[in-house]
Amino acid sequence: MSAAPSFDNPEHRRLADQLCACAGLFAARGLCPATGGNFSVCHEPNAALITASGVDKGALTPAQLLPISLDGTLLADGKPSAETGLHLALYRRDPAIGAILHVHSIANTLLSLIGQPASIVFEGYEMQKAISGQADHLGRLVLPVVDNSQDMDTLAAAVDVRFDEIGPVYAFLVRGHGIYAWGTDIVTAQRHLEGWEFLLACELQRRQLETRT
Amino acid sequence: MSAAPSFDNPEHRRLADQLCACAGLFAARGLCPATGGNFSVCHEPNAALITASGVDKGALTPAQLLPISLDGTLLADGKPSAETGLHLALYRRDPAIGAILHVHSIANTLLSLIGQPASIVFEGYEMQKAISGQADHLGRLVLPVVDNSQDMDTLAAAVDVRFDEIGPVYAFLVRGHGIYAWGTDIVTAQRHLEGWEFLLACELQRRQLETRT
Amino acid sequence: MSAAPSFDNPEHRRLADQLCACAGLFAARGLCPATGGNFSVCHEPNAALITASGVDKGALTPAQLLPISLDGTLLADGKPSAETGLHLALYRRDPAIGAILHVHSIANTLLSLIGQPASIVFEGYEMQKAISGQADHLGRLVLPVVDNSQDMDTLAAAVDVRFDEIGPVYAFLVRGHGIYAWGTDIVTAQRHLEGWEFLLACELQRRQLETRT
Amino acid sequence: MSAAPSFDNPEHRRLADQLCACAGLFAARGLCPATGGNFSVCHEPNAALITASGVDKGALTPAQLLPISLDGTLLADGKPSAETGLHLALYRRDPAIGAILHVHSIANTLLSLIGQPASIVFEGYEMQKAISGQADHLGRLVLPVVDNSQDMDTLAAAVDVRFDEIGPVYAFLVRGHGIYAWGTDIVTAQRHLEGWEFLLACELQRRQLETRT
Repeated sequence: MSAAPSFDNPEHRRLADQLCACAGLFAARGLCPATGGNFSVCHEPNAALITASGVDKGALTPAQLLPISLDGTLLADGKPSAETGLHLALYRRDPAIGAILHVHSIANTLLSLIGQPASIVFEGYEMQKAISGQADHLGRLVLPVVDNSQDMDTLAAAVDVRFDEIGPVYAFLVRGHGIYAWGTDIVTAQRHLEGWEFLLACELQRRQLETRT
Repeated sequence: MSAAPSFDNPEHRRLADQLCACAGLFAARGLCPATGGNFSVCHEPNAALITASGVDKGALTPAQLLPISLDGTLLADGKPSAETGLHLALYRRDPAIGAILHVHSIANTLLSLIGQPASIVFEGYEMQKAISGQADHLGRLVLPVVDNSQDMDTLAAAVDVRFDEIGPVYAFLVRGHGIYAWGTDIVTAQRHLEGWEFLLACELQRRQLETRT
Repeated sequence: MSAAPSFDNPEHRRLADQLCACAGLFAARGLCPATGGNFSVCHEPNAALITASGVDKGALTPAQLLPISLDGTLLADGKPSAETGLHLALYRRDPAIGAILHVHSIANTLLSLIGQPASIVFEGYEMQKAISGQADHLGRLVLPVVDNSQDMDTLAAAVDVRFDEIGPVYAFLVRGHGIYAWGTDIVTAQRHLEGWEFLLACELQRRQLETRT
Repeated sequence: MSAAPSFDNPEHRRLADQLCACAGLFAARGLCPATGGNFSVCHEPNAALITASGVDKGALTPAQLLPISLDGTLLADGKPSAETGLHLALYRRDPAIGAILHVHSIANTLLSLIGQPASIVFEGYEMQKAISGQADHLGRLVLPVVDNSQDMDTLAAAVDVRFDEIGPVYAFLVRGHGIYAWGTDIVTAQRHLEGWEFLLACELQRRQLETRT
């Protein structure tokens, strides 16, 4: 088992500070309303730092990040986010994942609800290139949607079954609930999340316009 | 009768500062246009601090919060918000209420006007859990709407009649006027208000999209 | 003729600072794109300070405010806003006007263009009370729209003809161009402008929704 | 060939600082999501400073601007933006261009995609005057749209063919990709970009409303 991280460790401290800054950025954009959203970074091979439950993401501090081993053992006192189990399942599923960001937006909430889609397709957007491995705007980029559940094992199982689709786009939606996006590190996860949110915001408006012109 | 609060009292001062910060946050998001909105905190068993009339909520200071007993006796010089009577009626109706926040948004204004509904129903949103006591996204969450009036006794009576519906969701809309939301303390009231505003913003967009897809 | 104001005069300086802060606020909200918008304050019975032409309203300084007599004599070196003539005509028309604010928004631009209306009617909004003299939400509040012109004499004449409608609501729209709003002082002008912009933003969304529900 | 610029040169330093501030402004407005957008200034007759590839435009520093000669020789170590070739082709095509700004918005992305237009027409907007040479709101202002390509030579050729249309409006859209706008200097380029973005945002909403009223 990993030892509890000490913020005397400069690399742990740097990652914690970086994750707090990243969360603060998305909170300032209104993507973490009502203490919503949660954020984690894999600071050791077998452990991650994850936001505590119910804290304001607009004023997050390293002391509000809880270390937890990837098998689920909490390594410090506190109550981690209710969605910790889903974060851990993702880290165990793909060791290349370095950071996971989850936020709520009107676009990611509504596009997963309207018509109850199994996935959302994006075509023709230059922004598709924001997702690692996408070379151009010509391909069909598919964002999977899984049904919402309050049970993290159920959610993790739904993600696991569809990981062949989910893995290559570094993100998925939970219906009516929000987006999970990740990357090899915090910077890459942030680029993926910003790219997906831009695509989703475009798509929401596109649907209103396309029937008219 | 309560004594007039002194800001030498550290707890009163802390609550006043916290309420000003909370109001400033919603003002910065554009929810208090034209000196709109009003904010209060119950700082003593029988008295509350409430925003003075006509002040800019984006630059609120403790000196602009007026102490008033819950029976309506003003405990300092100044002119309290025109909607003070509604705040006091809520505190008297439910002693568990610790803070009340009232703001204007496009979503809360329009959804209460379009079709003149008696309430607005939310289903399938994870954000429903932002409201205390809501365990999941599966229930029907109902936000009551009361007719607007310039007479606070009329408004308070309309709320009183429907308090069985209003109490458990910690909020109601006044038609064409805005939302009132509350909680046991300022932090909880803020979470409830942010949750409701997110749900209302989603619902406004959802109505535009659902007829198309 | 008025003497050129000196910013050694503390009251002139206070008004200049207040107008710059007010302009900066609307610029930060995106209402002065592309150096658009202009702002003035009547600092003497027969003279006003008005924004110079083409300056960034997000970083306005008192040195970018030019004194001009109400009959149009420039009292310092510089090039005043192209719309100076309209500001001066308003000050001459109604001596109670103390400050005039002009901004561009999507809502004020589009609502004056769509269907080429002669005025826009608002009903049922609590925010109608933000306009001085409006006692409740029950009246019909009518915002006049005049045709756009690059000639300030033509614009001023169009406003003059309809001043019986325009005066009591402290504002009018210029078609495809933006809103002019004013008050007895800068604070009141700002409240009027924020109230009108909220009403216009609501109305823009209301039109999209009302055909659906 | 130009010498590599030294930031000891005060004018180069001033231009670099000004370009970083300008990029930061558009990033803060959400127009550079996912490290998108790129920015350049022609700091010498035959060379420009351009943003490095993949950097966060919200925290741009002069050290992240790379000097490159207009014929494409990189004059310092680093990896310039993937769209550098298009910037250089524009500077070579019109020596009056002093700065080029490229950003992503929902409006500029969608209006170039919906119906695959060859251009977008604006009429009746006062904001048309934000574009140099436009004297009033009465003309038809036409913004050309070229097809997107990952090959900069292809994009540059498409712009070259239509430069008679593009040159006088100081901007064009790349389909599904964003806007390029420029001016004789950074301030003018910013005014053009803000003017176009306001017009595009209006037009997006106008299309939703016009079918209804």
